[in-house]
Amino acid sequence: MERKGNLMSYRPDIKVVDATLRDGGLLNNFFFDDDFVRALYQANIKAGVDYMEFGYRASKELFDENEFGKWKFSEEDAIREIVGSNDSDMGIAVMADVGRTEMDDFLPANESVIDMVRVATYIHQIPAAIDMVEKLHGLGYQTSVNVMAIATAKTEDIAQALNMLGESSVDIIYIVDSYGSLYPEQIRELSKLYLEVGEKYGKKIGIHAHNNQQLAFANTIEATSVGVSYLDATMMGMGRGAGNCTLESLLGFLKNPRYRIIFTLKFIQDYILPLKEKLVWGYEIPYLVTGLLNQHPRTAIAAIKDNNTNYAEFYKEVWYREA
Amino acid sequence: MERKGNLMSYRPDIKVVDATLRDGGLLNNFFFDDDFVRALYQANIKAGVDYMEFGYRASKELFDENEFGKWKFSEEDAIREIVGSNDSDMGIAVMADVGRTEMDDFLPANESVIDMVRVATYIHQIPAAIDMVEKLHGLGYQTSVNVMAIATAKTEDIAQALNMLGESSVDIIYIVDSYGSLYPEQIRELSKLYLEVGEKYGKKIGIHAHNNQQLAFANTIEATSVGVSYLDATMMGMGRGAGNCTLESLLGFLKNPRYRIIFTLKFIQDYILPLKEKLVWGYEIPYLVTGLLNQHPRTAIAAIKDNNTNYAEFYKEVWYREA
Repeated sequence: MERKGNLMSYRPDIKVVDATLRDGGLLNNFFFDDDFVRALYQANIKAGVDYMEFGYRASKELFDENEFGKWKFSEEDAIREIVGSNDSDMGIAVMADVGRTEMDDFLPANESVIDMVRVATYIHQIPAAIDMVEKLHGLGYQTSVNVMAIATAKTEDIAQALNMLGESSVDIIYIVDSYGSLYPEQIRELSKLYLEVGEKYGKKIGIHAHNNQQLAFANTIEATSVGVSYLDATMMGMGRGAGNCTLESLLGFLKNPRYRIIFTLKFIQDYILPLKEKLVWGYEIPYLVTGLLNQHPRTAIAAIKDNNTNYAEFYKEVWYREA
Repeated sequence: MERKGNLMSYRPDIKVVDATLRDGGLLNNFFFDDDFVRALYQANIKAGVDYMEFGYRASKELFDENEFGKWKFSEEDAIREIVGSNDSDMGIAVMADVGRTEMDDFLPANESVIDMVRVATYIHQIPAAIDMVEKLHGLGYQTSVNVMAIATAKTEDIAQALNMLGESSVDIIYIVDSYGSLYPEQIRELSKLYLEVGEKYGKKIGIHAHNNQQLAFANTIEATSVGVSYLDATMMGMGRGAGNCTLESLLGFLKNPRYRIIFTLKFIQDYILPLKEKLVWGYEIPYLVTGLLNQHPRTAIAAIKDNNTNYAEFYKEVWYREA
């Protein structure tokens, strides 16, 4: 597979998706001040970000509104309070988890401020994800399907899932490195696999990377270089555990003049640094260990919360549990 | 250029070089306790590290022994106090800067505990570096030449330097990303250029990466995947500014059973974490900015020392100074 574009040019097909509210919301149960969200929205517009994801559209029957901030539910009115009718060329996205979403909560797209709904699924839930996609497509939304935890799935299952998605109405299929366990050369092979399906069925391919091995940015630009075009990132990498691809690195890398990193840096200094004093995220050695061993980072998150710096013992525990 | 090896196999030609004392010494003027150095030496042997770099062999006529710890000079006796006659299969290395070294300070290799001398040079000093290499080779040492700051050198100058080095007695030629400004696809192209010369003249190629854009590990494994075989890293990335490729990530990535990451993790928890409370290194946004703009990180180091978190203003300053 040939490389697409080079370091002196830019590809207009690339779309940057800011997922700060959604992935960052996992750290504070989606309790963000309106002031923060409004400033984030303005900063993203100025920085040239293509889509801003506002949070989950989670079921209120399954999740208690007293336990979560409003971006767990990302209701129409809540988004409109921030963006009005979104008089900008930045798209508005929300995420909908398979099995945790009520489809009746979605208005027809022409009555909604939301442009794109991103369906998050595990590989065994693909039929349910496709069912959601068809309903959302019928309502007029752009859709993506984000297939999580593929590092533990079999290649033939991934291939079958991709063909099923190819035959659906979905617009974008995402490579998701949930555990931050994949190396750039694995990302390249996966990108190839996804892009072949994308070319066959006319779908775009996206990537959502985690930083457990300090590879989120590297994996994102590796995928980009072979043709992946929807790129997720968050402000200063804000997100669960080791966090995400840093938006500031990504905008610095991309050569399209629409991207202006300085507005991202300004938001970080004014709004993310104060949050960073209260919330913990970013690369630490326990994440390297769970990433290396291709496991969910929950044990690493617990070790870091407990200030457990006995890394060698942690490695042994995680390793032995594998067997 | 074909990829060398894959993620399930290992290449016996790969050599891991721990540069913690040398690059980390830039943070504390080489004042390490003997206890630290002895534990580092033992940990590296247990972890299967191939070479341990002890520090610089700097000229005592040019540098004041009262201002620097002993690993600025890495004298024979100092090393022997730690390693005895180094009854292990790990090689001992020191670094010698062009113009800052007295060649009379080197014993014949068969009287020395040092196995390899690494000559650090800027591209305009190549003839002086080769002069040092020939003297060291004559004394019986293995040698490398580490050509610094190549991101600001012209490709034709790099090509000429490589040919001059190819015709010299040097054993290993290093790609050095001094400013942490290079992306993996640039590292791949540079690796190709270096490896072609290496194949022609029978030289090994090495890489020394910095983490200004969170790419030190990614760049190191990218170079590895196309055939680069001498890989520099440091404990927890300890090194000036944004630091280096993390040894723990690298040993986790490599599949040769000689490498045992757990002894690296043990050293980090016992010896590096306490240091980290006193010394500052590792990725921060000002390093991203100098990396992006391909500049020496000194302004970023100063900004971080001053707790200057006005990232947008810093970006403007660095950017404008470019013009």
